[in-house]
Amino acid sequence: MAPLQEEDYLAQSTFEASPPKWHLGHCTWFFEYLVIQAIEGAKFQAIDEHYSYYFNSYYEALGPRVDRAARASLTRPSLNEVREYRQKIDAKIEVLLNGPDLDPGILDTLELGLNHEQQHQELFLTDFKKALAQQAFYPVYDPGFKEDRNPNATEKGWIHQQSGIYEMGTNGPDFHFDNEGPQHKVYLNAYAISKGLVSNAEWLEFMEEGGYQKPDYWHSDGWAWRMQEKIEAPLYWVQKDGQWYRFSLSSLEQLPLDSPVTHISFYEAYAYSRWCGLRLPTEAEWEIANKQFSWGDRWEWTNSAYLPYPGYQEYEGPAREYNGKFMVNQMVLRGASIASPEGHSRETYRNFFHPWFRWQFTGLRLAKDIHQNE
Amino acid sequence: MAPLQEEDYLAQSTFEASPPKWHLGHCTWFFEYLVIQAIEGAKFQAIDEHYSYYFNSYYEALGPRVDRAARASLTRPSLNEVREYRQKIDAKIEVLLNGPDLDPGILDTLELGLNHEQQHQELFLTDFKKALAQQAFYPVYDPGFKEDRNPNATEKGWIHQQSGIYEMGTNGPDFHFDNEGPQHKVYLNAYAISKGLVSNAEWLEFMEEGGYQKPDYWHSDGWAWRMQEKIEAPLYWVQKDGQWYRFSLSSLEQLPLDSPVTHISFYEAYAYSRWCGLRLPTEAEWEIANKQFSWGDRWEWTNSAYLPYPGYQEYEGPAREYNGKFMVNQMVLRGASIASPEGHSRETYRNFFHPWFRWQFTGLRLAKDIHQNE
Amino acid sequence: MAPLQEEDYLAQSTFEASPPKWHLGHCTWFFEYLVIQAIEGAKFQAIDEHYSYYFNSYYEALGPRVDRAARASLTRPSLNEVREYRQKIDAKIEVLLNGPDLDPGILDTLELGLNHEQQHQELFLTDFKKALAQQAFYPVYDPGFKEDRNPNATEKGWIHQQSGIYEMGTNGPDFHFDNEGPQHKVYLNAYAISKGLVSNAEWLEFMEEGGYQKPDYWHSDGWAWRMQEKIEAPLYWVQKDGQWYRFSLSSLEQLPLDSPVTHISFYEAYAYSRWCGLRLPTEAEWEIANKQFSWGDRWEWTNSAYLPYPGYQEYEGPAREYNGKFMVNQMVLRGASIASPEGHSRETYRNFFHPWFRWQFTGLRLAKDIHQNE
Amino acid sequence: MAPLQEEDYLAQSTFEASPPKWHLGHCTWFFEYLVIQAIEGAKFQAIDEHYSYYFNSYYEALGPRVDRAARASLTRPSLNEVREYRQKIDAKIEVLLNGPDLDPGILDTLELGLNHEQQHQELFLTDFKKALAQQAFYPVYDPGFKEDRNPNATEKGWIHQQSGIYEMGTNGPDFHFDNEGPQHKVYLNAYAISKGLVSNAEWLEFMEEGGYQKPDYWHSDGWAWRMQEKIEAPLYWVQKDGQWYRFSLSSLEQLPLDSPVTHISFYEAYAYSRWCGLRLPTEAEWEIANKQFSWGDRWEWTNSAYLPYPGYQEYEGPAREYNGKFMVNQMVLRGASIASPEGHSRETYRNFFHPWFRWQFTGLRLAKDIHQNE
Repeated sequence: MAPLQEEDYLAQSTFEASPPKWHLGHCTWFFEYLVIQAIEGAKFQAIDEHYSYYFNSYYEALGPRVDRAARASLTRPSLNEVREYRQKIDAKIEVLLNGPDLDPGILDTLELGLNHEQQHQELFLTDFKKALAQQAFYPVYDPGFKEDRNPNATEKGWIHQQSGIYEMGTNGPDFHFDNEGPQHKVYLNAYAISKGLVSNAEWLEFMEEGGYQKPDYWHSDGWAWRMQEKIEAPLYWVQKDGQWYRFSLSSLEQLPLDSPVTHISFYEAYAYSRWCGLRLPTEAEWEIANKQFSWGDRWEWTNSAYLPYPGYQEYEGPAREYNGKFMVNQMVLRGASIASPEGHSRETYRNFFHPWFRWQFTGLRLAKDIHQNE
Repeated sequence: MAPLQEEDYLAQSTFEASPPKWHLGHCTWFFEYLVIQAIEGAKFQAIDEHYSYYFNSYYEALGPRVDRAARASLTRPSLNEVREYRQKIDAKIEVLLNGPDLDPGILDTLELGLNHEQQHQELFLTDFKKALAQQAFYPVYDPGFKEDRNPNATEKGWIHQQSGIYEMGTNGPDFHFDNEGPQHKVYLNAYAISKGLVSNAEWLEFMEEGGYQKPDYWHSDGWAWRMQEKIEAPLYWVQKDGQWYRFSLSSLEQLPLDSPVTHISFYEAYAYSRWCGLRLPTEAEWEIANKQFSWGDRWEWTNSAYLPYPGYQEYEGPAREYNGKFMVNQMVLRGASIASPEGHSRETYRNFFHPWFRWQFTGLRLAKDIHQNE
Repeated sequence: MAPLQEEDYLAQSTFEASPPKWHLGHCTWFFEYLVIQAIEGAKFQAIDEHYSYYFNSYYEALGPRVDRAARASLTRPSLNEVREYRQKIDAKIEVLLNGPDLDPGILDTLELGLNHEQQHQELFLTDFKKALAQQAFYPVYDPGFKEDRNPNATEKGWIHQQSGIYEMGTNGPDFHFDNEGPQHKVYLNAYAISKGLVSNAEWLEFMEEGGYQKPDYWHSDGWAWRMQEKIEAPLYWVQKDGQWYRFSLSSLEQLPLDSPVTHISFYEAYAYSRWCGLRLPTEAEWEIANKQFSWGDRWEWTNSAYLPYPGYQEYEGPAREYNGKFMVNQMVLRGASIASPEGHSRETYRNFFHPWFRWQFTGLRLAKDIHQNE
Repeated sequence: MAPLQEEDYLAQSTFEASPPKWHLGHCTWFFEYLVIQAIEGAKFQAIDEHYSYYFNSYYEALGPRVDRAARASLTRPSLNEVREYRQKIDAKIEVLLNGPDLDPGILDTLELGLNHEQQHQELFLTDFKKALAQQAFYPVYDPGFKEDRNPNATEKGWIHQQSGIYEMGTNGPDFHFDNEGPQHKVYLNAYAISKGLVSNAEWLEFMEEGGYQKPDYWHSDGWAWRMQEKIEAPLYWVQKDGQWYRFSLSSLEQLPLDSPVTHISFYEAYAYSRWCGLRLPTEAEWEIANKQFSWGDRWEWTNSAYLPYPGYQEYEGPAREYNGKFMVNQMVLRGASIASPEGHSRETYRNFFHPWFRWQFTGLRLAKDIHQNE
């Protein structure tokens, strides 16, 4: 990971974020315990039996682990030891791939490991951005990093969708997480969904009209959070001499007005939608309409709680803890972000966070009800 | 309120519960500010302008108010003053009812005030039960109080429902809260829902098989809550000499095995459902099937997050804060409980609490997917 | 307690303060368990064995008790029951006093009970003032209550004291608490102590010169406390339209400039003393000089930590927990206050509180080093 | 610092401890801002003006600084940059030492910088031990490290001291901190002080007799702390299969019974002293008798609060914040520990910590009152 200095591998901004060294160790551990162990069964032997304590994230079935908030305090194993660990696991995976026993089940398990690692590539970047932001004086991650890629991301206009029964979710055959299935029917009323995301300019207008000061627009829990945390603007926004800047991975830069707003919580997204008399789409509305708009620069908050689809089946084995046990208290985000690895997401992908999370590259798209004959 | 001593009117067990005197003052205030003021408009004059500070619950639009946790610390106005306040408001309401201007709009507003008061009658009872439980030595509220009324509440057996498009919610004309509408279509897969609620005997089995000790059954947030709060049994259960008792409004009584379990959180209900390989119903599943089972002794947790129905419109005016601003982080409960006033609830009624709440009379009914041709 | 309404008996402003009903029950309990039980020994029988749970304050040796913060949540026993409890204990005490076994030991124990009750009379008043202050709209306790009695309390001028060995503390024979003894020698450098207390006018000057804004004057812990709690003025000071008021037991009144400042923490007193280039006296300096100044309107913070005198012996029996176990983390106050019962205090009396406490009637007197030949 | 791996330089176990890299940067910063700046005055120029934000510890007068708890989250400046910083400051100091302006004032200031650095050498070791202890699996710091050096440290027997006026503290001319002066008279009653420290064997006896279970021995604050933190043994003690071990800087080793107990709080030391019917010495008693016993393996808790000596004068300039502002809520420790640099401490040295601190190498020596003619 080129732009990092050695010390950066231990940076942890809050208990909810993890240091780069941990992300590296954890992805390796996932390959060892949820992929290799799943394949090898009884003959599995760990590289170092202590590593599971260090690098298990939240798999209760796989034993005790370091407290999340203390991940940065684990200076051992050292970065070099973790890199060696990774090389050993990579070698084991290569053996598996070239082995005579390679069957579709093994490939599926490997694919889960790879997709898991892609998720942590994104988390590494967002966690590390948060750690950098807590350094004084706005250090630069990578001067060439672009947080805005789609020049039309905040395009105006509406897409109309008729009421009716639709199919959503997927049964494959392509890779997907358990939470994306099964495919199932939903009934939707007629609705419109905006072509583009809300821009920084629009968000500034919300701020100037007192959006953060008037409780009318907010959920009760959202307002309590905003008061408690003294939230006045999106995360990483900085005001100097009356001018707004944002801390990005490339610099502290003047706020680009046409870019999609980012680093907002669900609470803020909801307040914005009410302020302008509209609403957030549900995840079903988003999925059904998604081919008609472009997405990918921001994870888009929906007004859907993260719940199981009808007929949902968790993975078997330790991977059952991957998704299902988080299906309460969280909201669904759809799309992808500029931090998501190429090709990682898809139209049925369900990302989810607690409604106060802000350090992912989040954004919002608006929706409204329409009458069939409008 | 007959069984109370004067001092009991100030009992507040936690910041989330309220003292009886406050419930009385608040319901009166609601009639004054959300009913009478709505009707009188500009000519409205408050009985005592300080009372809004004391008795406003959470209406941001109606000005500042005492911190929720401090309600019990407000010894003034005294109980006698609050009773006088109530008499004055009752008199004003009577005048309105007999007035020449009585139109359907006024009656609707009054009906909201009455339904609001019914909700607080239930909350008074559950909040006060919690306060009594925190007294030492289990004081009796009312020796004649029955926490179980329906002798068949835990009946066995399943009701089957076919897949298809159903209508749920209501547009009236009978009284209903804004969150129950509009009526709308939903598509449901085929499912079965149990005829009765889970009993104390069944819950004991869950406990004996380690239900509270094995994280596998729990949501991640639920397990963290259970560990933090050291939850080992439903609220108000007490073990003495190997025997289980429950603290009820009539006594500390031996646990009645056939009665429906109560005072459980959503987290516990979910864990139970997973332990027995089933699931909680959604609120749609509950509503569609409700005529085929009896309900009313317990509020039943569903696996539905409390979210707006498609096309949801909040009340106008200050009452808009009644329901809509709570539509995040909470789970829906359906039915009614032995603490609900007669006739208060109905099949479209949506009760809601955070998933860790236990001091309402909560319970659970199970559901499962079925294949059409089973 | 005349100015109280029934509900006031349950008012508790913070976990550190207690409701009036509890003070009444606790003083009664103290007579029962630390006086009558000490005298009766094995034949002692409690009026109601539950009462110890309710009214034990902090005597570990006398068994479990309600959590301090929950005292107000105990609506039972009712005020009437507590009053009956008191009458029964009063009757028992009367029997003891008229009994044939009346010996000096019994009288000593009774005297401890009486002095204990006097302390709670003062605490009742200060705790209740705090509870009243948390009511909205500044209710009046007693329009005739005077918080300033000595018209010369803030007299100017210095008293000089020579260096040398002095005796401090007392061995009796008059009543004194264990922590006032034994009498012992201390060596003091020469010092001067001010004749009067710091006035409100002087405190205003401190505030106007940035006393609460400049960390230079403060202890590190004091500054952290001031920042955390956002302290900007003494407790109960209120600013309206540029004018300062204080909430007193008689009214919200314009700040009397010549009266001694009150309701300040040790941290604030210390900061003030440094701001004016002086210091607080030690308790030895205060005691040695006390006959040369008048005291009694305010408890005066000293710069002495509350520690045992050389040769200190705790009481025997349960009363050993009365004083000794608090001899860490607290600072000594000397004198008395307008809330102290007549004749309760004396020149060797050692009051003590944590350095952040403000709701007693606290004040400060200044001191400075002098050179023998000044 | 030989035994450290690169990553170890960022280890921070709690907000009260600091990472090794921070200790290094802070000592360098102290030389730059409190030594070089003090000498150079107006012509002073900082190496990097950002470094003061990173490495200022608690000097309010020297501007804003990173929150203490976030020191480990500062991955920048990197270890290499901090090492370069140190080399530059070392070079500047060398120039000063060889300069023509070298006067006694400069040497005094330098001496403060050196003594400050010695304190951080000790803190580095104790903070890092704490960080190592939070790693899983007890990593070894240095297999050759000896935590016990004096074979007679727990010698039995008493030293008697007569009552009278004694001189304590120092005015120099040798280096001493401001808090050690001025020398002044104290009057002491006759007392005895133990020749040796309390041993691990003796502490085990205290534990076996219920020392941690009986509130009688404890201060009220101490007992609350012990209950809250679930303290059952000294810090770093580990029980396996009924056998006690201690985590030392050399290994997890069987508890050496004759060695002085260490890593105990003041609260525990006090409880122990009461359990055996004795007491802790005051710092005056310790200082007056110190030539008659050996000390140096453990910092010894005294029963003296950390308060200014009569006539105490703080340093001038920013160094005034060095000691004086901590003179509340802390207890004095005397002696030195095996982590103290050779020659750093002396008989008048006053170390101080909050009464709950345990990760310094603390211990205790006992005292008792004697009657002159015993």
